[in-house]
Amino acid sequence: MSLTDPVMNELLSLRASIDNIDAALVHMLAERFKCTQKVGKLKAEHNLPPADPAREQAQIERLRSLAVSANLDPDFAETFLNFIIKEVIRHHEAFRR
Amino acid sequence: MSLTDPVMNELLSLRASIDNIDAALVHMLAERFKCTQKVGKLKAEHNLPPADPAREQAQIERLRSLAVSANLDPDFAETFLNFIIKEVIRHHEAFRR
Repeated sequence: MSLTDPVMNELLSLRASIDNIDAALVHMLAERFKCTQKVGKLKAEHNLPPADPAREQAQIERLRSLAVSANLDPDFAETFLNFIIKEVIRHHEAFRR
Repeated sequence: MSLTDPVMNELLSLRASIDNIDAALVHMLAERFKCTQKVGKLKAEHNLPPADPAREQAQIERLRSLAVSANLDPDFAETFLNFIIKEVIRHHEAFRR
Protein backbone atom coordinates (compact mmCIF):
# COMPACT_ATOMS: atom_id res chain seq x y z
CA MET A 1 0.00 0.00 0.00
CA SER A 2 1.47 3.37 -1.00
CA LEU A 3 1.36 6.53 1.10
CA THR A 4 -1.01 8.14 -1.42
CA ASP A 5 -3.60 5.48 -0.73
CA PRO A 6 -6.59 7.28 0.85
CA VAL A 7 -7.04 4.45 3.36
CA MET A 8 -3.42 4.81 4.47
CA ASN A 9 -3.84 8.61 4.62
CA GLU A 10 -6.87 8.20 6.86
CA LEU A 11 -4.98 5.73 9.07
CA LEU A 12 -2.00 8.10 9.37
CA SER A 13 -4.31 11.01 10.20
CA LEU A 14 -6.01 9.00 12.96
CA ARG A 15 -2.63 7.92 14.33
CA ALA A 16 -1.46 11.54 14.40
CA SER A 17 -4.56 12.42 16.46
CA ILE A 18 -3.87 9.49 18.81
CA ASP A 19 -0.27 10.70 19.23
CA ASN A 20 -1.46 14.24 20.03
CA ILE A 21 -3.94 12.91 22.59
CA ASP A 22 -1.29 10.67 24.15
CA ALA A 23 1.03 13.66 24.57
CA ALA A 24 -1.84 15.54 26.26
CA LEU A 25 -2.58 12.54 28.52
CA VAL A 26 1.08 12.24 29.59
CA HIS A 27 1.24 15.92 30.45
CA MET A 28 -2.08 15.87 32.33
CA LEU A 29 -0.90 12.81 34.26
CA ALA A 30 2.37 14.57 35.13
CA GLU A 31 0.36 17.55 36.42
CA ARG A 32 -1.97 15.24 38.37
CA PHE A 33 0.99 13.56 40.11
CA LYS A 34 2.39 17.00 40.98
CA CYS A 35 -0.92 17.66 42.79
CA THR A 36 -1.08 14.28 44.52
CA GLN A 37 2.54 14.60 45.62
CA LYS A 38 1.66 17.95 47.24
CA VAL A 39 -1.35 16.27 48.89
CA GLY A 40 0.91 13.49 50.18
CA LYS A 41 3.43 15.98 51.57
CA LEU A 42 0.68 18.05 53.21
CA LYS A 43 -0.90 14.98 54.81
CA ALA A 44 2.46 13.65 56.03
CA GLU A 45 3.42 17.06 57.51
CA HIS A 46 0.11 17.45 59.32
CA ASN A 47 -0.43 13.82 60.33
CA LEU A 48 -3.58 13.51 58.26
CA PRO A 49 -4.64 9.95 57.34
CA PRO A 50 -3.25 8.98 53.89
CA ALA A 51 -6.52 7.42 52.72
CA ASP A 52 -9.92 9.13 52.65
CA PRO A 53 -12.58 6.58 51.64
CA ALA A 54 -15.39 9.18 51.39
CA ARG A 55 -13.29 11.32 49.02
CA GLU A 56 -12.37 8.26 46.95
CA GLN A 57 -16.02 7.18 46.69
CA ALA A 58 -17.01 10.70 45.56
CA GLN A 59 -14.20 10.67 42.95
CA ILE A 60 -15.35 7.31 41.57
CA GLU A 61 -18.98 8.41 41.31
CA ARG A 62 -18.06 11.72 39.68
CA LEU A 63 -15.74 10.06 37.17
CA ARG A 64 -18.32 7.41 36.26
CA SER A 65 -20.88 10.13 35.64
CA LEU A 66 -18.40 12.18 33.52
CA ALA A 67 -17.58 9.02 31.57
CA VAL A 68 -21.24 8.41 30.72
CA SER A 69 -21.63 11.98 29.43
CA ALA A 70 -18.43 11.56 27.35
CA ASN A 71 -19.65 8.21 25.93
CA LEU A 72 -16.87 6.31 27.72
CA ASP A 73 -17.50 3.00 29.50
CA PRO A 74 -17.97 3.99 33.20
CA ASP A 75 -16.45 0.68 34.35
CA PHE A 76 -13.35 1.51 32.33
CA ALA A 77 -13.24 5.00 33.89
CA GLU A 78 -13.38 3.46 37.37
CA THR A 79 -10.65 0.92 36.53
CA PHE A 80 -8.59 3.81 35.11
CA LEU A 81 -8.97 5.84 38.33
CA ASN A 82 -7.95 2.83 40.41
CA PHE A 83 -4.93 2.33 38.15
CA ILE A 84 -3.84 5.95 38.77
CA ILE A 85 -4.56 5.77 42.52
CA LYS A 86 -2.34 2.67 42.78
CA GLU A 87 0.53 4.74 41.36
CA VAL A 88 -0.28 7.62 43.74
CA ILE A 89 -0.08 5.22 46.71
CA ARG A 90 3.28 3.94 45.40
CA HIS A 91 4.53 7.57 45.34
CA HIS A 92 3.24 8.22 48.87
CA GLU A 93 4.92 5.10 50.20
CA ALA A 94 8.19 6.10 48.52
CA PHE A 95 7.85 9.60 50.03
CA ARG A 96 7.31 8.25 53.54
CA ARG A 97 10.38 5.99 53.30
CA MET B 1 -10.36 20.74 61.51
CA SER B 2 -12.51 23.62 60.25
CA LEU B 3 -12.87 24.71 56.63
CA THR B 4 -11.02 27.95 57.43
CA ASP B 5 -7.93 26.00 58.40
CA PRO B 6 -5.23 26.94 55.84
CA VAL B 7 -4.09 23.31 55.61
CA MET B 8 -7.63 22.19 54.77
CA ASN B 9 -7.95 25.05 52.27
CA GLU B 10 -4.74 23.94 50.58
CA LEU B 11 -5.97 20.33 50.52
CA LEU B 12 -9.33 21.37 49.01
CA SER B 13 -7.57 23.51 46.39
CA LEU B 14 -5.33 20.59 45.37
CA ARG B 15 -8.33 18.26 45.22
CA ALA B 16 -10.18 20.72 42.99
CA SER B 17 -7.18 20.71 40.62
CA ILE B 18 -7.12 16.89 40.66
CA ASP B 19 -10.85 16.85 39.83
CA ASN B 20 -10.32 19.26 36.92
CA ILE B 21 -7.45 17.14 35.60
CA ASP B 22 -9.51 13.94 35.96
CA ALA B 23 -12.34 15.51 33.91
CA ALA B 24 -9.77 16.43 31.24
CA LEU B 25 -8.32 12.90 31.30
CA VAL B 26 -11.76 11.29 30.91
CA HIS B 27 -12.57 13.51 27.95
CA MET B 28 -9.18 12.96 26.30
CA LEU B 29 -9.62 9.20 26.77
CA ALA B 30 -13.11 9.35 25.22
CA GLU B 31 -11.63 11.19 22.23
CA ARG B 32 -8.75 8.68 21.99
CA PHE B 33 -11.20 5.76 21.88
CA LYS B 34 -13.18 7.54 19.15
CA CYS B 35 -9.96 7.57 17.09
CA THR B 36 -9.02 3.96 17.84
CA GLN B 37 -12.54 2.81 17.02
CA LYS B 38 -12.22 4.51 13.63
CA VAL B 39 -8.84 2.78 13.19
CA GLY B 40 -10.42 -0.57 14.07
CA LYS B 41 -13.28 -0.01 11.61
CA LEU B 42 -10.87 1.05 8.85
CA LYS B 43 -8.63 -1.98 9.41
CA ALA B 44 -11.58 -4.38 9.49
CA GLU B 45 -13.08 -2.91 6.30
CA HIS B 46 -9.78 -3.10 4.41
CA ASN B 47 -8.50 -6.39 5.85
CA LEU B 48 -5.48 -4.73 7.43
CA PRO B 49 -3.83 -6.64 10.29
CA PRO B 50 -5.24 -5.49 13.68
CA ALA B 51 -1.81 -5.30 15.36
CA ASP B 52 1.18 -3.31 14.12
CA PRO B 53 4.20 -4.12 16.31
CA ALA B 54 6.44 -1.44 14.70
CA ARG B 55 3.81 1.26 15.36
CA GLU B 56 3.36 0.04 18.95
CA GLN B 57 7.12 0.11 19.57
CA ALA B 58 7.33 3.66 18.19
CA GLN B 59 4.40 4.72 20.43
CA ILE B 60 6.09 3.27 23.52
CA GLU B 61 9.42 4.96 22.77
CA ARG B 62 7.76 8.31 22.05
CA LEU B 63 5.64 8.16 25.21
CA ARG B 64 8.62 7.23 27.38
CA SER B 65 10.55 10.18 26.00
CA LEU B 66 7.60 12.55 26.53
CA ALA B 67 7.26 11.22 30.09
CA VAL B 68 10.90 12.00 30.87
CA SER B 69 10.49 15.58 29.64
CA ALA B 70 7.30 15.94 31.74
CA ASN B 71 9.06 14.52 34.84
CA LEU B 72 6.83 11.44 34.82
CA ASP B 73 8.20 7.92 35.45
CA PRO B 74 8.71 6.47 31.92
CA ASP B 75 7.95 2.95 33.19
CA PHE B 76 4.61 4.24 34.46
CA ALA B 77 3.93 5.90 31.07
CA GLU B 78 4.62 2.60 29.31
CA THR B 79 2.37 0.66 31.74
CA PHE B 80 -0.30 3.32 31.18
CA LEU B 81 -0.10 2.94 27.39
CA ASN B 82 -0.36 -0.84 27.70
CA PHE B 83 -3.38 -0.40 29.98
CA ILE B 84 -5.09 1.75 27.33
CA ILE B 85 -4.10 -0.57 24.47
CA LYS B 86 -5.65 -3.52 26.35
CA GLU B 87 -8.97 -1.64 26.36
CA VAL B 88 -8.57 -0.77 22.65
CA ILE B 89 -8.09 -4.48 21.84
CA ARG B 90 -11.23 -5.28 23.86
CA HIS B 91 -13.15 -2.72 21.76
CA HIS B 92 -11.77 -4.16 18.50
CA GLU B 93 -12.72 -7.69 19.51
CA ALA B 94 -16.24 -6.53 20.42
CA PHE B 95 -16.48 -4.74 17.06
CA ARG B 96 -15.44 -7.84 15.09
CA ARG B 97 -18.04 -10.00 16.88
